[in-house]
Amino acid sequence: MTSDGQTKILLDESEIPTRWYNIVPDLPEPPPPPLHPGTGQPVGPDDLAPLFPMALIMQEVSTEPYIEIPAEVLDVYKLWRPTPLYRAHRLERALDTPARIYYKYEGVSPAGSHKPNTAVPQAFYNAQEGVQKLTTETGAGQWGTALAFACALYDIECEVWQVRASYDQKPYRKAMIETFGGTIHPSPSVLTEAGRNVLAADSDTPGSLGIAISEAVEVAAQDPKIRYALGSVLNHVLMHQTVIGEEALKQLDKVGDTPDVIIGCTGGGSNFAGLSFPFLREKLAGKISPTIRAVEPEACPTLTKGKYAYDFGDTAGMTPLMKMHTLGRDFVPDPIHAGGLRYHGMSPLLSHIYELGLIEAEALGQTECFEAGVQFARTEGIVPAPEPTHALAATVREAMKAKETGEETVILTALCGHGFLDMAAYDRYFAGEMIDFDYPQAKIEDALSRLPEVPATG
Amino acid sequence: MTSDGQTKILLDESEIPTRWYNIVPDLPEPPPPPLHPGTGQPVGPDDLAPLFPMALIMQEVSTEPYIEIPAEVLDVYKLWRPTPLYRAHRLERALDTPARIYYKYEGVSPAGSHKPNTAVPQAFYNAQEGVQKLTTETGAGQWGTALAFACALYDIECEVWQVRASYDQKPYRKAMIETFGGTIHPSPSVLTEAGRNVLAADSDTPGSLGIAISEAVEVAAQDPKIRYALGSVLNHVLMHQTVIGEEALKQLDKVGDTPDVIIGCTGGGSNFAGLSFPFLREKLAGKISPTIRAVEPEACPTLTKGKYAYDFGDTAGMTPLMKMHTLGRDFVPDPIHAGGLRYHGMSPLLSHIYELGLIEAEALGQTECFEAGVQFARTEGIVPAPEPTHALAATVREAMKAKETGEETVILTALCGHGFLDMAAYDRYFAGEMIDFDYPQAKIEDALSRLPEVPATG
Repeated sequence: MTSDGQTKILLDESEIPTRWYNIVPDLPEPPPPPLHPGTGQPVGPDDLAPLFPMALIMQEVSTEPYIEIPAEVLDVYKLWRPTPLYRAHRLERALDTPARIYYKYEGVSPAGSHKPNTAVPQAFYNAQEGVQKLTTETGAGQWGTALAFACALYDIECEVWQVRASYDQKPYRKAMIETFGGTIHPSPSVLTEAGRNVLAADSDTPGSLGIAISEAVEVAAQDPKIRYALGSVLNHVLMHQTVIGEEALKQLDKVGDTPDVIIGCTGGGSNFAGLSFPFLREKLAGKISPTIRAVEPEACPTLTKGKYAYDFGDTAGMTPLMKMHTLGRDFVPDPIHAGGLRYHGMSPLLSHIYELGLIEAEALGQTECFEAGVQFARTEGIVPAPEPTHALAATVREAMKAKETGEETVILTALCGHGFLDMAAYDRYFAGEMIDFDYPQAKIEDALSRLPEVPATG
Repeated sequence: MTSDGQTKILLDESEIPTRWYNIVPDLPEPPPPPLHPGTGQPVGPDDLAPLFPMALIMQEVSTEPYIEIPAEVLDVYKLWRPTPLYRAHRLERALDTPARIYYKYEGVSPAGSHKPNTAVPQAFYNAQEGVQKLTTETGAGQWGTALAFACALYDIECEVWQVRASYDQKPYRKAMIETFGGTIHPSPSVLTEAGRNVLAADSDTPGSLGIAISEAVEVAAQDPKIRYALGSVLNHVLMHQTVIGEEALKQLDKVGDTPDVIIGCTGGGSNFAGLSFPFLREKLAGKISPTIRAVEPEACPTLTKGKYAYDFGDTAGMTPLMKMHTLGRDFVPDPIHAGGLRYHGMSPLLSHIYELGLIEAEALGQTECFEAGVQFARTEGIVPAPEPTHALAATVREAMKAKETGEETVILTALCGHGFLDMAAYDRYFAGEMIDFDYPQAKIEDALSRLPEVPATG
């Protein structure tokens, strides 16, 4: 065994991107607009003002390709950015593959994932506009933790509704959110009308991100000092995450490699978009030609089995209608351990890009994912969160394909978070208690039968 | 709010130290040797051979100031080393102190602490000598996790006895150790005679590191293919950890600062020694003059209240006699949350250095420590493990003293691990259920009344 050459490709603090990248103006056609559910007309900034600060609304609808990152946000990014890009030498050896595997690791952040990349600017802009409290939903808990941390920096209160399945599986998340000064409730809760309605229909529901969003939106809409923050799905959230891909571009450049395949897991889409959009920009400009692949769980196969249609972002139907790949807003996924991937819809921007044929998608079962996660931990020394094990399992598949063909495929993947707070899931895996849920075809068809009607536009 | 200047002081992989530093030859007098409990004679390499591989035994007794780090070990170090040195700008602002606070962060390692720095070379040397299985004890679980990871790299089995108080408080550690391929038992267990004896006397015992060491040593001593690994206390362990201080020296040099005070928490002493010994070398050479301060828990005040005497390293009396600060080998500390600091003794080398007056010590209660930990999390974004909250609380004290005097004190502290797997302790803190245990004076005196007699030397 000899030295492998470079393992971590690092950047200096001065190389943190100073602009977020907005892919919208670079696309061959613009994404369909969100619509007002009452009028069928595109929603304007004023429609969103009760929920979001104007600075974020302007980013949401921006057609500028780049937006400057405020100095105050860059200053906080320095707590964990630039994040390392790793060459997975040991995993490659274990797989005996000619592929070169790189992973961009976002687990070094305060929350342990990519989520603070957008939580910090969201809290910053809200604080600038005098907001006193932010409400939000969280699945696995990464987003709620990130927002609690960001709110602590700007002296804003933070109130989090966590999907009950995850709340019960991951008790340490509650303590993390409280350590950062936030408050947390399991969702559905009796604190909101949306929550009470769901509980009345099914008191044993594991909850869903759609339900938790309804609860957080309901509370924010009632008080002008309270606003709402979303951890994925929206354009501005995806844009904030592009710091991941911008750094990865520079880091691969430093070692002179160009990706053949880019792989990320998708729940609402922000991690995947964060890594891939800057590379997609280069691809659209004809400079590189990677395959870009989204990986989702079989239990919640939004891109691969969902319908591309206008639907609500939440379960109660309080948001604008968004054209996206959806399983139906009242679809409640089986309680898989990747709580961050249990969303009934997909980012409208990413859905549009998928429809344009610019990216691929595949769905995997969770036991294959945990198997890859354990192999990764034993070779690379990082225990991955359940969400990125989906990307790792797809990476292993790609590396084994390279082994068959003998090609030196360059694979870039997103290790969007560590699993320190998800160890109960590994416990179940080792106890042989983890099961793969079938494609929930009947449940999907049932939920899709209730897609909202889009009013005819005036 | 404006930009703060540099937050993370990073080194390149090429700047990982290539040698471990052995402080023994630089001390004004050598530490007293370990003695054979039967003969009262200094133990030789052969006496240790049933437990340790010869390469480590030779490091344990070495009088060379530097030992080369094998290329294979350096190659693994690159998975997380060099670790970042942070300037705590945000904590300084929150404390409104003129002090400049730096923290060396070891939580980026596979186990989440400094422990892999020695686990990897220990597993490597054992593998080289054909060992098939390593046994060990663990307190908080950091060491057991680190050794399980290191054993996975070299295809060695790993069997861990974890102090029951920590085993019950921190269930995720079991899953971590299993993820890395190790097996774990709560200690005392019925698997060993040492464990059965303790259980017979007190079936409700919370356990102790001394008991867990007895169990692991007992199993290793019975089979020549099995050896034992210790996570702290011994000279070679402290030496492996000096990569921390060597890196910190280079990092402070890069920003042109020199520490006035160096603060680390102490359980067995390896984290503290790892950070401070390279600085102590510079101090002994007359180049710098920092105060160097060890911080221990009030519930286990080895340096501040223990006796400097020959005692066993374990509870059952299976190890050589070591001259160290001890609370008595059957002292069972109250079940505080800093499981890594609940050892009845202190590293003999560090005890000797304390007796020489080269370092200071103080003891703190755990609620003050958690208070500092929460403030640190909300400003710096890292939730610390309970152990380093002791160093952080002492750092806050020092920074507040600087505020009173107006001095720009440069403080360097060791953030030896994150608290992601210790969130149950934070939960209790926020629930108001955390208590400070008094100095257990009567329990200490009782245990010290049973110190072993040292046989008159021939």
